[in-house]
Amino acid sequence: MTYCIGVLLDEGVVLASDSRTNAGIDRVSTFRKMFSYDKPGERFFTLLTAGNLSLTQGVVSRIGEWLNTEDPERDLFAVNSMFSAARVVGAALREVHSTDAGYLQQHDIDFTASFILAGQVKGGQLRLFMIYDAGNFIEAMGDTTYFQIGEVKYGKPILDRIIRRDISLGDAAKCALISFDSTMRSNVSVGPPLDLMIYRRDSLKPGFTIRLEDDDPYLQAIRDGWGGAIYKAFHDISHDPGWKI
Amino acid sequence: MTYCIGVLLDEGVVLASDSRTNAGIDRVSTFRKMFSYDKPGERFFTLLTAGNLSLTQGVVSRIGEWLNTEDPERDLFAVNSMFSAARVVGAALREVHSTDAGYLQQHDIDFTASFILAGQVKGGQLRLFMIYDAGNFIEAMGDTTYFQIGEVKYGKPILDRIIRRDISLGDAAKCALISFDSTMRSNVSVGPPLDLMIYRRDSLKPGFTIRLEDDDPYLQAIRDGWGGAIYKAFHDISHDPGWKI
Repeated sequence: MTYCIGVLLDEGVVLASDSRTNAGIDRVSTFRKMFSYDKPGERFFTLLTAGNLSLTQGVVSRIGEWLNTEDPERDLFAVNSMFSAARVVGAALREVHSTDAGYLQQHDIDFTASFILAGQVKGGQLRLFMIYDAGNFIEAMGDTTYFQIGEVKYGKPILDRIIRRDISLGDAAKCALISFDSTMRSNVSVGPPLDLMIYRRDSLKPGFTIRLEDDDPYLQAIRDGWGGAIYKAFHDISHDPGWKI
Repeated sequence: MTYCIGVLLDEGVVLASDSRTNAGIDRVSTFRKMFSYDKPGERFFTLLTAGNLSLTQGVVSRIGEWLNTEDPERDLFAVNSMFSAARVVGAALREVHSTDAGYLQQHDIDFTASFILAGQVKGGQLRLFMIYDAGNFIEAMGDTTYFQIGEVKYGKPILDRIIRRDISLGDAAKCALISFDSTMRSNVSVGPPLDLMIYRRDSLKPGFTIRLEDDDPYLQAIRDGWGGAIYKAFHDISHDPGWKI
């Protein structure tokens, strides 16, 4: 399994991904699921991946091969908008589908691959997209300010309580890590190290990145602190329903 | 969809269920998913149901028809242990399967039905079971002190943080309602009114029951209070990771 989050804020964007993959419960490996493509001063893109590893790697490889080809429909360094960038990811995914989907079907393997793409091209807005299996995509706008892919449910309640477009990059990162902590507690197929990227809007330079190992002090502080904080929050609700139990 | 919880505690058991069913998003109805079978001074059972409504109603109907037949393999009023009671539910489910599963398959409809059964028979322990589609079942013991059926993921993190066997019945009920609040926020196919039942261990009388409508003051206090409490808990984690963002 996988868990990835992308959060779009007034200040910028926060992206996080786990790194655990498994093909059966006895084939567990660590693979990076966050990929960045930057031209400082000109463009910034970061892609998060979930789904069948052979498919997502196929997409990432194609995007890599298409760089510097100057094809505005395939080259992330040549596109002139985030909309075009999202279409490049969709095009790579559709090419993988046309190559592999039939063979997967012969083995009853689902074609599963989804992506979160954040980025900014000089002169344009910072934008956040979610790209589905079929290569179609949606964009975060208005009230929808974050996307999740992979094992999304355990970590969603805390996002819904905290994430708003005007919170700080640091608070969004903290909230994302709490969401990961809840998810990792409940699903062992989501696991550290976690990759975290924080990009400040309009900076047009590579974002701040850090890989958080299981024993990272901040991750530990969140793990230890959140349980106690929730326990206290629980007891702070003091309404007595007056039931005669 | 459905969400049900059963929590086994030193003091007793807490059971909760929503009441929303849907066959497509435009056929939403309210059906009770909690069913009790009591003989005061002698036995107490409560069953929670999730899955295809025609199947779970078929199981509940059979259990009802089998009452007072004095068949110890079918009659909840004749069984002499909780293990036998769980087998009665399994037997009813297997009979529904043998009657209906083939026809459902012709329409590509999955056979989905799962149950939580709590109860106590005089001279025996209070026990909690989860019964699967195939009529097989597991029992809560040791570290596993709660079961969920239906839409289980959104509301699981709060249970994992709070539920322990030695908390009070009232705290477990409060935690269950917070878990429902998180689930109802995230999945509109889980909805009020909620049925709540609290049974005190060894009392061998019908548990305390209440139906909580959407505007119930306690449910509202939890809904309003929990968001604020989580917000405060979030900001109480003050560790500075020292990142240069």
